[in-house]
This record gives sequence, structure tokens and C-alpha cells, in this order.
Amino acid sequence: MEVPGSRSGEAPNPRYSGSYVVSRPVYSELAFQQQCERRLQERKTLRERLAESCSCSRKRVLGVLKTFLPILDWLPKYRVKEWLLSDIISGVSTGLVGTLQGPFPVVSLMVGSVVLSLAPDENFLIPSGNGTASNVTIVDTVARDAARVLVASTLTLLVGIIQLVFGCLQIGFIVRYLADPLIGGFTTAAAFQVLVSQLKIILNVSTKNYDGILSIIYTLVETFQNIGHTNLADFVAGLLTIIICMAVKELNDRFKHKIPVPIPIEVIVTVIATAISYGANLEKNYNAGIVKSIPRGFLPPALPSVNLFSKMLAASFSIAVVAYAIGVSVGKVYAVKYDYAIDGNQEFIAFGISNIFSGFFSCFVATTALSRTAVQESTGGKTQVASIVSAGVVMIAIVALGKLLEPLQKSVLAAVVIANLKGMFMQVCDIPRLWRQNKVDAVIWVFTCIMSIILGLDLGLLSGLVFGLLTVVLRVQFPSWNGLGSILSTDIYKSTKNYKNIEEPEGMKILRFSSPIFYGNVDVFKKCIKSTVGFDAIRVYNKRLKALRKIQKLIKKGQLRARKNGIISDAGSSNNAFEPDEDIEDPEELDIPTKEVEIQVDWNSEIPVKVNVPKVPIHSLVLDCAAVSFLDVVGVRSLRVIVKEFQRIDVNVYFASFQDHVIEKLEKCGFFNDNRKDIFFLTVHDAVLHVQHQVKSREIQDSILETISLIQDHKDPLELMEAERIEEELNAEDEAMRRLAT
Amino acid sequence: MEVPGSRSGEAPNPRYSGSYVVSRPVYSELAFQQQCERRLQERKTLRERLAESCSCSRKRVLGVLKTFLPILDWLPKYRVKEWLLSDIISGVSTGLVGTLQGPFPVVSLMVGSVVLSLAPDENFLIPSGNGTASNVTIVDTVARDAARVLVASTLTLLVGIIQLVFGCLQIGFIVRYLADPLIGGFTTAAAFQVLVSQLKIILNVSTKNYDGILSIIYTLVETFQNIGHTNLADFVAGLLTIIICMAVKELNDRFKHKIPVPIPIEVIVTVIATAISYGANLEKNYNAGIVKSIPRGFLPPALPSVNLFSKMLAASFSIAVVAYAIGVSVGKVYAVKYDYAIDGNQEFIAFGISNIFSGFFSCFVATTALSRTAVQESTGGKTQVASIVSAGVVMIAIVALGKLLEPLQKSVLAAVVIANLKGMFMQVCDIPRLWRQNKVDAVIWVFTCIMSIILGLDLGLLSGLVFGLLTVVLRVQFPSWNGLGSILSTDIYKSTKNYKNIEEPEGMKILRFSSPIFYGNVDVFKKCIKSTVGFDAIRVYNKRLKALRKIQKLIKKGQLRARKNGIISDAGSSNNAFEPDEDIEDPEELDIPTKEVEIQVDWNSEIPVKVNVPKVPIHSLVLDCAAVSFLDVVGVRSLRVIVKEFQRIDVNVYFASFQDHVIEKLEKCGFFNDNRKDIFFLTVHDAVLHVQHQVKSREIQDSILETISLIQDHKDPLELMEAERIEEELNAEDEAMRRLAT
Repeated sequence: MEVPGSRSGEAPNPRYSGSYVVSRPVYSELAFQQQCERRLQERKTLRERLAESCSCSRKRVLGVLKTFLPILDWLPKYRVKEWLLSDIISGVSTGLVGTLQGPFPVVSLMVGSVVLSLAPDENFLIPSGNGTASNVTIVDTVARDAARVLVASTLTLLVGIIQLVFGCLQIGFIVRYLADPLIGGFTTAAAFQVLVSQLKIILNVSTKNYDGILSIIYTLVETFQNIGHTNLADFVAGLLTIIICMAVKELNDRFKHKIPVPIPIEVIVTVIATAISYGANLEKNYNAGIVKSIPRGFLPPALPSVNLFSKMLAASFSIAVVAYAIGVSVGKVYAVKYDYAIDGNQEFIAFGISNIFSGFFSCFVATTALSRTAVQESTGGKTQVASIVSAGVVMIAIVALGKLLEPLQKSVLAAVVIANLKGMFMQVCDIPRLWRQNKVDAVIWVFTCIMSIILGLDLGLLSGLVFGLLTVVLRVQFPSWNGLGSILSTDIYKSTKNYKNIEEPEGMKILRFSSPIFYGNVDVFKKCIKSTVGFDAIRVYNKRLKALRKIQKLIKKGQLRARKNGIISDAGSSNNAFEPDEDIEDPEELDIPTKEVEIQVDWNSEIPVKVNVPKVPIHSLVLDCAAVSFLDVVGVRSLRVIVKEFQRIDVNVYFASFQDHVIEKLEKCGFFNDNRKDIFFLTVHDAVLHVQHQVKSREIQDSILETISLIQDHKDPLELMEAERIEEELNAEDEAMRRLAT
Repeated sequence: MEVPGSRSGEAPNPRYSGSYVVSRPVYSELAFQQQCERRLQERKTLRERLAESCSCSRKRVLGVLKTFLPILDWLPKYRVKEWLLSDIISGVSTGLVGTLQGPFPVVSLMVGSVVLSLAPDENFLIPSGNGTASNVTIVDTVARDAARVLVASTLTLLVGIIQLVFGCLQIGFIVRYLADPLIGGFTTAAAFQVLVSQLKIILNVSTKNYDGILSIIYTLVETFQNIGHTNLADFVAGLLTIIICMAVKELNDRFKHKIPVPIPIEVIVTVIATAISYGANLEKNYNAGIVKSIPRGFLPPALPSVNLFSKMLAASFSIAVVAYAIGVSVGKVYAVKYDYAIDGNQEFIAFGISNIFSGFFSCFVATTALSRTAVQESTGGKTQVASIVSAGVVMIAIVALGKLLEPLQKSVLAAVVIANLKGMFMQVCDIPRLWRQNKVDAVIWVFTCIMSIILGLDLGLLSGLVFGLLTVVLRVQFPSWNGLGSILSTDIYKSTKNYKNIEEPEGMKILRFSSPIFYGNVDVFKKCIKSTVGFDAIRVYNKRLKALRKIQKLIKKGQLRARKNGIISDAGSSNNAFEPDEDIEDPEELDIPTKEVEIQVDWNSEIPVKVNVPKVPIHSLVLDCAAVSFLDVVGVRSLRVIVKEFQRIDVNVYFASFQDHVIEKLEKCGFFNDNRKDIFFLTVHDAVLHVQHQVKSREIQDSILETISLIQDHKDPLELMEAERIEEELNAEDEAMRRLAT
């Protein structure tokens, strides 16, 4: 029953000075569920669920169709007037940039290593002389390149198949695990990989083809070892290209609002460099490394060699995932910017189908290039129409312009790539911000980056993923926890550390544990409880047992006496109120093994033996479980153990704010076989009020018992009358207390 | 200010009929923190923490010493009278059983595979003839066995070193991840491994030594393929042994309270079988496989060959972990039973030191045998003294009795092992119980078991561990969530699905999300919100934009008119209260690009264009974040996005019950750069009351504005007076409302 509160004298809240009054019964979970007629939820059976998910409606079929052919979804909605022009402009710009850059360099490197290992130079050696058995052999480059194209296109097909299978198996949920810090570290490492691979082209020094762990480091080291062989013409051309490109890009960026389309500096530089190289004949005069031959036109469709599949399966897996991961991570950047969601499974299917298709046309594994995506977006591209236009531009370039670019220095191309990596490297600047905001995220960034550099991109991505998940487990495993106290005598309970005006209810401890309780953190949970209550329940129990054993020995020896109700007293004590109990000297009784129940000891008073029994200053422990989102069997068992351990030392454990589904789990796991359901309360405040009431009742009861025993011990009729009066008074007091409390 | 409630008419709670009244201000987090003087916590710097953990006190040194030599801890506390006798009885029984069983068979198998691969038969071939170049070669068994012992003891040393290092590095926390279901599945798989390896001994058929993935399956298949070569004498002896052992063990178990010590049936069977084999000369007459040679006495200490380390490093790692895992998992069973905790690091150190020591004495990797542990416990062993006694018994047996056992059939020993596996296999019966209690735990059990059988124990354990952690991640990632409603007009909010007498506050939705919000589940979180509110905020916004665009077109064409305050009206409508606005035909104004703010549309009324704009039936969304135990940067960003997305469509988002440390995280991540802190409330009820007050105020304000605009439109002095009266009345009403609400 909620009633609007009367206007409070002062306005404590700067925005809204309302106050509220709630008057309701103290609810244990059981009472609440009974009163409010809890419904048991009907769970669907497996069969029902299957039937549901396999049902086939027209809308559903259309949805599936659109997943495989999303063009059915967006093309009918195309706004020709608004979008077409910008799509065409954007497509042409992207096409120009794309003409001179291949696919994303990281995937190229990964494909390259497979190609080199399956079709190495050694397989294509032919004797150089005419039939003479000379030691000099040369490489049959034509056969080698054909074989390599075959390997690459077979790989593309296999990658496509894997991606399509992943998409159909709904593995796309993996996108979720590609957290921003992970993507940041990963793409930075990828940029570093690319940088190293382009560096040796700029310097025009050759290195071995390293493979596997640390290969990038070996390559870097060997590049610097051979730095003496640098070709100056290539180096100077590369350096100039980098400087010019980066400067113009900076200008593009600064004046992007003033110029309609960014200056396509890559195209300009390439054209000029080709002209210079051709004019000065750099190849002959300076031994510069030039592109030399660009294949013109298209290769005819060819059947990939399926028998290579088994040899490239492992590599295909990692390429499939890495190519996908790059595409999705770039996509995520724009999904955040333009407010749409990426469907991870659809991406897998798209990549898969396009790779399978292109596998038959001597194509390369598809992925996403951040740089060209950025160009398409910043030049105003709206839809996939821009991509179609840019593909057309690239096609024209391949068919018509390839030949013209043959004198171009390779180092210029490499320099263009490096100049485009700036954005990726700038991600390093995120680390300090991340560290300030969330240290774990910063660690994930750095870990993924370092691992991707050391182990290679595939294993690096995997280890980053696993590490990321591990941090989640650790954060769940080592949660925050607080001892709580009530504030200003309200129903609000907050951490005792955080507030000044806070008090713990007398004789009680309240603990909030902010995490599920499962096998990984039951130990942590127990430690939290120990730290909150200030003692170890097991140790207290053991010490008490030890003390009891000694007390019983003393009783045996007659140095201690026990009253009938079990309360012990020092035999030599001057307290005459306690009469020696005659039964205790009965030798038969003493032979019964010691059990705690036989002798009652007030453990918080001085005990007569030298055993250091830790004091237990509380009678109740309330566990605030609002943030316990699930329990497993190990968790349920430890809750049971904890309740038992504390009951042994006369501390009652109560649970507050458990969520309904967690209580259901407790039920299933048999928690209520040895625990009553009324130790569960709706809120911490309900539990505290309940406990306070219980304590009051018990105190009253105790004082009555005390009086009665006093009366029975002293048979003086006058005292008896006095005692009766006291008892009556106490009863009245009890009744009054009850009336007040309820 | 809490006041004890008056006695309620009925007692709704069966146990405690108390009720309570709380009257307090409505608190937003900000107001609460200001009023209650929140303390900012001082965090320790890294240096302070280091100094703390490196401080060196006498107690600390003693603690560390006890970790390495726990005997210092328990021996002084030994209760000679109570424990010694049962320790000796238990030790002798265990020793007798232990004499005839080697270490835990799983570890033996793992060590065996290393030994076989590093010292195979082929390395010890010698020509059989006297110098003739015949093709027949025999194996130099003496040299081979010496080499194999060397490999095994070197392996033991290396395993010990690894375990000691793990212990010192505090890797023992890994014990936490050995959940009960994982251990159940793992030990069952181990039992299966042992069963298969013993099966071929009972049948006396030989198989190849398989290694790696699926080896156990291959062995099993080959055993059955060669089943035709079974030696009947061995098979019958084995079968009889199994039947007898299991029967007697069953009796032992049934009458364990009546017999002082279980019948050591293993010892008896072994003695009888040896006698029969010797008497009937089974080896010669039936070609039975017998033990043949048991080395007597002890080998002298020998230096392990350290140069083998590199070859066995990988295997040592898995043996170190598996041996440890078995020991700890058996230990955990008794830790639960006898209420003590296992210190994972101390176990590592103990195993490590003992293995390093025994590595120099041609010993075998140490681990725990469940069967003998069970014997020691059930015969009354209390402390490690029992272990010392049983070690003594084994020593006597080795020195004196070895020779006598040489005629024993191997199949009898194998049968003894199999008979002891029953307990392990019985663990399968746990699965149905686990499935009922917690399906995830059952799946972990089965997964670990199957993987350990397929991949081998080392990889199986690893995959089980990873799978277990993954389930934690998944449970965190796909948490339970509920739409909440208030119950009986109290301050209690529960899932709308679970209770009958529940109502959602008008125009509001309340969602409780029971999990941290992090990169892995932001998508899930968004889906939960969508499902709770019943619409997609992004889609609503886009549809509204589309409708606005059409409306503007209509206005341009003159088919629609808009009032000054932006509310549109149908130009052809008969509603004469809305006068056409003259400004709207101004062509200049129409050229300004459409922005939502320019035209106000009442989206919940009929709109004049054919756009299917989803209805938004709510004005506020309250997120109950009591169970959000942490946030990462991705989580914070999605919260920010969600608030923004809903604000765009005029739905306010409020957060309730956030924990203090989570709010701190929000602050650090810049959440309050674009959000005010007063959308955070202490409880759901505070938030709901606040919203209801806001709505009331706004309604009053709107009606005043409406009146004023009516007044300004109609300049009739009489109407003006009437309007003034209305306004006054409204103001009074407003004041009254305010007084009521605050």
C-alpha cells in the first residue's frame, strides 16, 4: 500500500524534492510467493522448440532468401535521385585507388606463405645448360607461376567453403568476441606485419621466406642485416613517395570540407613515378626493382585442384577466420557510426559465396581493405552500387592500363601502402585512454597486438580471443564485494566503506557478493564471507570442540561443575547462585563421548580453559544475492556448506534479494532438503527486520526462562510471588514488543 | 526515517506477521551521494601494494616454512592416544593393497608412452647368431630396461621440477577450475583408458603401441581384431579374479560395520593365483603370460640424463598437470567430506619435491591412487603416519617377497586393477542427477569424458577446462532477463511473467538484466531491450524520419499545414480550431533541410502519410542494473548509444540500483559527458516515482500552454477572462498536485 508522503520540511534532492512512504509486511520469499500467487512457468519442451524453429512460413522463407541474397532487400529501396550520383563519384574514386592496391596485405601475406610452401622454387628447377650435367639450374617461372595461381585459387575455394559452412552453422556469433580493444591490437599488429613486408621492398633487399612463430621478427632482423645492399634509387623513390602521400593526405583531411573529392594522390604519384622510371630507365641505370610484367586481361575459368585441400586445411581455417575478422572489424567501425547492426552469419555467407565463386576464376581470397573502405565512405558512397562502379573502374584499368605501369618501381607501390598504414598505427594512441577507462581492456589490446606480432596473425587472433574470454572469467571470478550497512535508518543498504553515516545492524553482518557463484569462485566467495564476518567459522568450531574436550576433562576431575541446563561454572568460583549439580559426578554419564549439545557454553564470556576460541560477535549473517545471476552445482553445495558451518556456531545465515530463477536452481539442486525456505527474504531490509524481531523475542523468552529457573531453585514463597510478578511483567512486555514489531 | 508499522489486520506471512513502514525522500544517485556524504575511496598505489606483499615478519616466514614442510604444522598436534592405533591398522592394510598395485594406471600409461618412444625395442637389437650376418635379431632386454628406467626417472625429475616451479609461481589456483563434473568425466575417461589397457593383458593379445589422438580407440579395435589369439588360461584366470574380487568387495561394502578391516581380497587372490600358476606350471602348459621377473631390492641412486629433457618437455608438462589433477581431485572428495580446504600450491610443491627427490632413485612419477586412498580412509587412517606405515609394508614386500610372485599370471594383476575401477565407472550414474540439477554441468561432464577418451587424457583435460570456462562465459553472455512490474502497489518489482497480481507502471517498461555488460553480450543486451519495449528504437527513428520527409513534401505541395508550434494538421481537415499558418508557404523556409525539431508530430496519433511508423506506447524505460557486476568500454559505449537512441524517439532511459563501483566505471569512461547523473536512481521504485512525478508536471504544463495559445488565438475579451480563470485553476491544480506528490 503506497501512500504519497507528506511534504518534507527540507528538499534534500536538488532536482526533485519528492519523498515516499511504503508500508508493507516483512516478506520472506515463501510468504511472498504464497501471498502473491506465484505462477510456475511452463517451459517449452525440446520438441516444441524444435517444431517452432523448423516451422516454415512465407515470411520466414523470404527472410532466409534475403540472408543469402541481401540485394533483394536493399535494391528495391534504392533512392535513385538521392544516392546514385554520390555512389558513382565514390565508386570511381575508390576504383582508382583500388587499381593500384591489391587485397588487404595481411591476407596476401598469409596466402603467400601457403603458396610458397606448396609451390616453392625448388619444384620448378630445370637444368640451365643444354643437356649438360652442370650444377647451375634456373627456375621455370612460367610453370611456377601457373602452379602458384592454381594453389592460390584452390585456397580461395577452400576458404570460401569453410566460410559458407561457418555461416550456415551460425558461427557468426564469433563477431561478438571481437571486442574493440582486440580489434585495435590485432589491426595494429597487422599493420606492423605489412610495414615489415613492405620495408624490404622499399630497401630492395631480399630475405628468406620465414614462416610460423616470430617470422616477422626474423624478417625484420634479416632486413636490417642486409641493409648494406639497399638500392638507393628504390629507397629514395620510396621515401619521397611516403612523404608526399602523407603530406597530401594530411591536407586532404584538413580541408575535407572545402574540396569535393580528396586528391587521389596515390594515382598521381604512381603516374609520375612510372614516367620517371621509364624516362630515366631506372632499372638499367640503377638496378631498381620494377613491376616488370602486369598480366593483362582475365584468366579463363579453371578447376581448382581439390586434391590440395588436405594440405592447406589448417591454413585455410586461419585465413578464413582472419579475412572474415578483418572485414567484420572494419564493418563494425561504420556500423557504430551509422547505427546499424552487422549480422555475423550473413557476412560469413557473403564471403563464402564470393570466395567459392572466385575460386573458379583464378581469384584471390576476398577481404576488406580499411583504406579503400574509408575512401568510399568519405567520398559519399551510400550503397553497394558504389562498389559495382569501382569494380568496373578496376576492370577497365586491368584490361587497358596494365601495360603502361610496367616500368613502375616496386618500392613506390610499397611506399603507397606504407603511407596508408598511418591510421592503423594511430590506434596506439588509444592505449592511454583505454588504460584510464578500463585497465583490462588496455591489457587485451596490448596482449593481442604483441601476440599477433610474435605468433603470427592467426595464432595471435586466437590467443587474443582466448585471453579476452579469460579476462571475463577472471572478472566474474574475482568480483567486487562489500560489507553493507544501513543508511540513515532507511531501507537502503550500502557499502560501509563508501559512506559516513552508515551503521551495521547490531550483531549482524551483511555481505553483498557481485557475481554468479560457480566452481571457479566458491573459494573467493568463502574468503569474502570470512573477511566480512571477521572470523573463520570452521576454525571457531574446531577451537570450540577443543575447549569442550578440555572442559569435560576438568569436569571429570571435579574442577568444574555443570548445571542441569548445561551451563558450566567454575567449581572454585564464589558465585553461590549456581549450585553444584549432583548428577555430573555419575561416572557412567562421563563415558558418553563429548557432544556439543550436552554442555552449553556461553562462548562470548570468559571460558575456564586456556583455549583461544575466537569470539563470534554476531548472531546473523545476511547475504545480499541480488547480483548472483546464476549458480552451478558446486555453488549450491558451497552455499549449503556455509549455512551448516555457521549454524554449528550459532550464527544464522539469511539470503536476501535472490532472483527467482536462482531460487529455482537451488530447489532443483536439493538445497531445501536441509534448509528451510524461510531463510530467504525479498530484500535485505526484510531480512534485517525479521532478524531483529527474532532476537527481541528470544531475549524475552530467555529472561522468562531465567526467572523460572530462579524460582524453582529458591522455594521461598515470598520470592516466588515476586518472581510471578516479574514473569507477568515480562509477559506483558513481550506482548507489547510483539505488538510494536508486527 | 523508519517507523514501526501499526499492527496489520491480517497476518500474511505464516511465520512472522511483521510489517514495516518506510518513509524517505525519492533518491537519485546524485542526491543520495550528496546527502549521505559519500567518501571517495583511497586506492593503494602499486608501490604500496608491493611493499605490503614483500614485508617480512616472523609469522610470515613461519607460514612459508610450513608451506614447504607441512609436517612442522601437523606433527606437533598429533594426538598419539587417539590416532596412532588406527593409523597403524590403516597403514598396514593400505600397504598390503599397495604392494601389488603400481601407481595410478593413467599416469603409468602416459609415462609408458614416453619411455617407449625414447627407448624403443629397435634401439637395442643385437644379432642373434655368432657373428653370422643372419636376418634374425633379438632384443638386448637388459640394456633396454636399464635405458627405460633411466628415461622414466629423468621424466620423474623433470615432472618434479615443473610441478615445483608451478607451485612457486602459485599456479595452484588452477585447482579452482577442476569443477566436480569435470573431474567426474575426466576420471571416468581415465578408468576407461585403464580398462582398455588391461583388457589386452587379460586376453593376452598384443597390439601396437598407439600414441596421440584416438589411440585408445585404435588399441581397443586392434584388441578385438586379435581376439582370436586369446590365451584361454589367462582369460579364465582374469575373469575369475574379476568376479571374485568384485563379489568380495561388495560383501566388504555391505558388512563394513560388522568387520573390523575389509577382507584384503586382492592379496588373497594374488597368493592363491600364484600358487596355482606355480603348481600347474601354467606358463609351460598353457603358454600363459606370467610376471616372470620382479626386481628385488632397490636400485642405487643414479643421475638422470638431463640431456633428454628437451625431448620430453611437452610430455612432462601434461604428465605434471595430469598427475597433479588426479591427486587434487581425489583430495577434493575428502576435503568436502572432512571440511578442510586444499591448498593447490602446496600440493604442487609437495608433488614437485617428492618427484625431484625420487628422480635420483630410479623412481616413478608420483600421483594418487583413488583405490588405496579409499582403503586408507575406510580402515580408519587419520594422518600421514598411516602413509609412513604403509610405505614400510611395501618396502618389506619388495625386499623379501618379490621373488615369490614371479609365477603370477599378468592377467590376474590386470583383473585386480579392473575390479577396482568399478567405483570410477559408477560415476556415470551422476549424469542423470546432474542433468536434472544443472544441464550445463552435465554437459561439461560428458564433454570432458568423451574428449579425454578421444584426444587422450592430457588434451582431454585441457579441452574440458577450456570448455568449462567457455560455459561460464556463455552463461554470463546469455543471462536471464525479465520485464518487471510492481506488485500490489508496493515497492517490490518482480518479473511480469511470474506473478499474477502484477502491473507495469503506465507508459513505462522496466527491464532487469542479470549479468555484466561487456563486449560479449552487448548485442544480447540490446535484443533484451528491444524485446522488452516491443519495438526497435532505430527502426522507429528511421520510419519517423521517412514520414517527416513525406510530410514535408506534402506541406510543400500545400496539402498539409503546420502550426507555429510545429504541430501539423491536415489542410483538408474540417477541424477549424487549427488555423492555417501563413509562414509555412514561405519557399525559403522549405529549402532548409528537414530536421526533426522543425516539425512536431504526435507520433501516437494517426499521421497523414502512408508510412508504417511503429507506435511507441512508452515514455520511459527503467533498467534495473542490480545484477550488472561490471562494465567494460564496449558496454559503457552501448549504454550511451541506447540512451541516445531512445532520447531521439522521446523515450527517457533511467538506470536503477547500479552498484557504486559500476557508476565509478561509467564516470571514468566518460558516460556523464553526454548524460546527466540524475538519470541514476537508488532503486527501481525511486526511478518509477520520479518518472510519474515528471509526467504529472508535464501534463499540467502542457495544459497551461494549450490554454495560453487558445487565449492568444482568440482575442475575445470574454473568452480571455474565461481563459484566465482556467489558467488560474490549472495553476492551483498544479500546485495541489505538486504538494501531493512531494
